[in-house]
Amino acid sequence: MKVKKIIVVALLLVHFSAANAQLKDSLIIRSFFETAFTKGKAYDEWLRYLCLNIGGRLSGSVQAEKAVEYTYSELKKLPFDTVWLQPVMVPQWIRGNKEQAAIHTAKQKYDVNICALGNSVGTPEGGLKAKVIEVKSFNELKNLGKTKIAGKIVFYNRPFPDVVLTGGAAYGASVDQRSVGVAEAAKYGAIGVVVRSMTHALDEHPHTGATNYIDSIAKIPGCAISTLHANLLSNLLKAEPNLEFSFSQNCEMKGYVLSHNVVAEIKGNEIPEEIILVGGHLDSWDNGQGAHDDGSGCVQSMEALRLFLVNGIKPKRTLRCVLFMNEENGLKGGLEYARLALINKEKHLAAIETDAGGFMPREIGIDVSEEKLKSLQGWQKILAPYGIQTISNRGGGADIGPLRKQGVTLIGYYPDGQKYFDYHHTEIDTFDKVNKRELQFGAVTLAGLIYLLSEYGL
Amino acid sequence: MKVKKIIVVALLLVHFSAANAQLKDSLIIRSFFETAFTKGKAYDEWLRYLCLNIGGRLSGSVQAEKAVEYTYSELKKLPFDTVWLQPVMVPQWIRGNKEQAAIHTAKQKYDVNICALGNSVGTPEGGLKAKVIEVKSFNELKNLGKTKIAGKIVFYNRPFPDVVLTGGAAYGASVDQRSVGVAEAAKYGAIGVVVRSMTHALDEHPHTGATNYIDSIAKIPGCAISTLHANLLSNLLKAEPNLEFSFSQNCEMKGYVLSHNVVAEIKGNEIPEEIILVGGHLDSWDNGQGAHDDGSGCVQSMEALRLFLVNGIKPKRTLRCVLFMNEENGLKGGLEYARLALINKEKHLAAIETDAGGFMPREIGIDVSEEKLKSLQGWQKILAPYGIQTISNRGGGADIGPLRKQGVTLIGYYPDGQKYFDYHHTEIDTFDKVNKRELQFGAVTLAGLIYLLSEYGL
Repeated sequence: MKVKKIIVVALLLVHFSAANAQLKDSLIIRSFFETAFTKGKAYDEWLRYLCLNIGGRLSGSVQAEKAVEYTYSELKKLPFDTVWLQPVMVPQWIRGNKEQAAIHTAKQKYDVNICALGNSVGTPEGGLKAKVIEVKSFNELKNLGKTKIAGKIVFYNRPFPDVVLTGGAAYGASVDQRSVGVAEAAKYGAIGVVVRSMTHALDEHPHTGATNYIDSIAKIPGCAISTLHANLLSNLLKAEPNLEFSFSQNCEMKGYVLSHNVVAEIKGNEIPEEIILVGGHLDSWDNGQGAHDDGSGCVQSMEALRLFLVNGIKPKRTLRCVLFMNEENGLKGGLEYARLALINKEKHLAAIETDAGGFMPREIGIDVSEEKLKSLQGWQKILAPYGIQTISNRGGGADIGPLRKQGVTLIGYYPDGQKYFDYHHTEIDTFDKVNKRELQFGAVTLAGLIYLLSEYGL
Repeated sequence: MKVKKIIVVALLLVHFSAANAQLKDSLIIRSFFETAFTKGKAYDEWLRYLCLNIGGRLSGSVQAEKAVEYTYSELKKLPFDTVWLQPVMVPQWIRGNKEQAAIHTAKQKYDVNICALGNSVGTPEGGLKAKVIEVKSFNELKNLGKTKIAGKIVFYNRPFPDVVLTGGAAYGASVDQRSVGVAEAAKYGAIGVVVRSMTHALDEHPHTGATNYIDSIAKIPGCAISTLHANLLSNLLKAEPNLEFSFSQNCEMKGYVLSHNVVAEIKGNEIPEEIILVGGHLDSWDNGQGAHDDGSGCVQSMEALRLFLVNGIKPKRTLRCVLFMNEENGLKGGLEYARLALINKEKHLAAIETDAGGFMPREIGIDVSEEKLKSLQGWQKILAPYGIQTISNRGGGADIGPLRKQGVTLIGYYPDGQKYFDYHHTEIDTFDKVNKRELQFGAVTLAGLIYLLSEYGL
C-alpha cells in the first residue's frame, strides 16, 4: 500500500468515525427529546408546583424556604449521586402593604399603578407628596442640579428603545434608571423616585426589580410605575408642570436570614474532577409567581440532568444542577457558591445559566475567544432541531458571574426574548404564561449542550 | 498586464462588488426594520382594527365584507401603482345558535364545550342523542364496521403526537380526523361525529375547522370537542361504554355569495412582467377574531410592501400583496386568483404565503430543487438578525397552491409554531395573543425576502 493510499484510508476512517460520533450524539440528544416530551417533569410537575402551590419566592420569605425544601426533596427522589444544600445568608426585604400612588392635577386625582423597587426604603408615615421632575437621562438630572430637583420627586421616563433586535438589548439600554436612578436622584436632594417600568409592553402592570443605594447618600424611596401610567403622567406634566404625585409604600429591609442553594450532582465516569454546572435562581420577586423568572430556568436545569438519569447516559465529566438563592436582590447564593468552589478547589469546566424565560431556544452564548468559538459552532447543527439558531460568545448570567475569576467558562442560554420583558418582575409572570412545549425544548437543548460539553470539553 | 494578473484583479472586483451588494442589501433591509419598528402600521393600526373593530371574518359574513372594504381603503391611501378587488363567489356557511352538548351517564349529565365543524350540517330539530364509539384511526373504524357503528356517534380521539418538532407536523398527523372523518363515519351509518380538537393544549376551547363531505354519502353533523372534555368523555367511556352523548347545532350552508380578493401592486422598474406575490387570507373563522389566523398574515403582507413605499425602494420586479378570501372553507379566492393569472397570461416568479401566525420568524420554505436551494440559502445570513434560522424547501400555503400548475415557485413563511395551534380556530385567537414586536419581525422578514427575490430572482 502506498503512503498516499494509506493517508486516504486513514482520512476516510477519521471522517467515518467523526460522522459516526455525530450520529451517536444526535441520537442521544434525540432520546432526551423523546423522554422530555413523553415523560417530562419540568412543566406539569415542577413548574406547576413552584408557581401554583408555592408562588412568588422572594429571598427570606416562607415561600423561598418552601421552594428550597420542595426542590431538594424532588431531587432526592432521583438517582443523583449527591444532593445537598449550601447554607447562605440572604437579605430579607419585605414589600409590606399594597403600594398606593396618584397624580394630582388642579382639577382631578388619577390613581396609578406602582410597586416599590426591591431593596427600597418605605415612604414616611402617611406617604409622600411632591412636585415632579421628568428626566430621560442622568445627564439631564445633572444639568437640572440641586436647585431644580431638591424637594421633588424625580420621574425617570426613558422608554425601552424600539429599534433593538432583542428585549435584552432594550433592557440593557434602560435599566440604569431603575438600578442606580434612585441613588443618583438622592444626590440632588430628590425626596422620591418614580421609574417607568422596564418593558416594551404598554399596559397597567408595574415592574419591580432591585435598586441599589450608595451608603454615603440618604436613602429615598423608589417605585416603578406601569408604562400606561408613565405616559399619562408625562402627558399631564406637559399640560400642568406643577402637578403633584403622591405615593406610599411601607417596604423595608429587615436584615439577613439563613437560606440555601440547592445542588444535585451526577459524578463523571471518566473525568470526574471537571464539573459542568447548569443552573437558574430559585428566588423570584414576590408580586408574581416567578414563572419565567426564573422558575423556568430552575426546572429546566433539574430536567436537563434528569434526562441523563432516565436515559442511563453516564457523563464523562461531573454534572451539577444548582438552584441559586437571592439572584434578584443580592446575589448572595451565586457569591457563596463561588466562594465554596474556590475553598474546595473545585474545577468547573463550564457554568451555564438559564435565566431568560421558558421560551423557544434561540442562542447559546459561550464566553470564549473568537477562534475557540468557531470550533464550538459545529454544535449548532446538532442542536438546531430543538431551536438553536446561533452559538455566539456573549456568555453569562448573574449567578454564575462570580465563578469568572476562577477561570470558569461562562455560558448563557438565550431563548427567544421578545416577550420576556412583558412579564418580567410583574404580577403576570405566572404559570399560564409559560408554554409547556417551549419550556421542554429548552430543557432538551440544555441537556444536549451539557452532553456535548461533557463528551468533548471546550 | 499578464492574463493571470487580470484574472486576479477581475476576481477581486467581483468579490468586492459582491460584498458591497450584500452590504447594500443588509442596509436596505435594516431600513425596513427601522421603519417597521418606529412607524409601523401592521399591529397598532391594521391588526387592531381587523380584530377589535371587525372581528371574526367568515366568508360571506358582514364582517368579511367590512374587512374587504377596510383593507381596500387602507391600501388605496398608500402610493401603490394599483389597488383593486377581484370578485369571487364564496360559500356562505352559518354557525347559527351557540352549540350545546352533554355527556349522559346513568347517574349524571356533564355539559361539555363543542363547536360545529365548518361546512357541517346541523343536527335534527331538538338535537341528537346516541351511544358513542371512540376510535383513534380510520382503520379502527373499518374494523368496527356497520354493525357496531350504525346509529351511533363516532368520537375521533387521536391526540396530537407529543414527539414532533413543530405544531404543523402534529396537525398534519391528526387533521384527517376532522377534514374527512365525518364523511368516513357516515359510510358506516354513524349519525354524528365528535372530533377531539386539533391542539397540543389541554383546555376548554373547542377548535373549529372545515370538514368535507362526499356527495354520494349522507351528510351527518360533525363537531369538535375541547381536549379537556375529550379526555373526560374518553375516561367516562372506559367506565360506562353505554353512556350517551347529545349535541345540537343549527349551522347550515346557505349557498354562494359575492366577495372579493384584495390586491395591491407596485410595478417593477426593470422586469415589470415578473410578479412576486405575498399574501395571507382575509377570511377567518367566526368564533374568534382571526388574529393569528390570518389577520397577522394579511397585515404583514400589507406592511411588507408598505416598507418599500415608505423607504422609496423601487423594486426591479412587480410586487403584489394579495389578501385572499375564503381560505378556511372553500379556497375560492386562491382558485380565482390563479384562474385570472392564467387568463391574463401573468408571469409570477414566486408566491409567498404567510398563514402560520404572527410569531417570531424561524424558517422560509422555498419549493425548489435541492441544488437551487443551496444557492438561495445564502439569504439566511442576511435575514438572520430578524429571526430566520433556516431556508428549507418545504414551500407552500393553501391560497397560493393553485398557482403551482402555472410553474410558480411557492414559498411558505414559517414563524415559530409551538403556540399556533393553542389558538388556531378558537375563540381565543384574539388580538391580545399577538405580540407586536414578533409580528413586526415577520413583516420585516417578508419585506427582506421580497427585496432579495426582486433583486436577484430565483
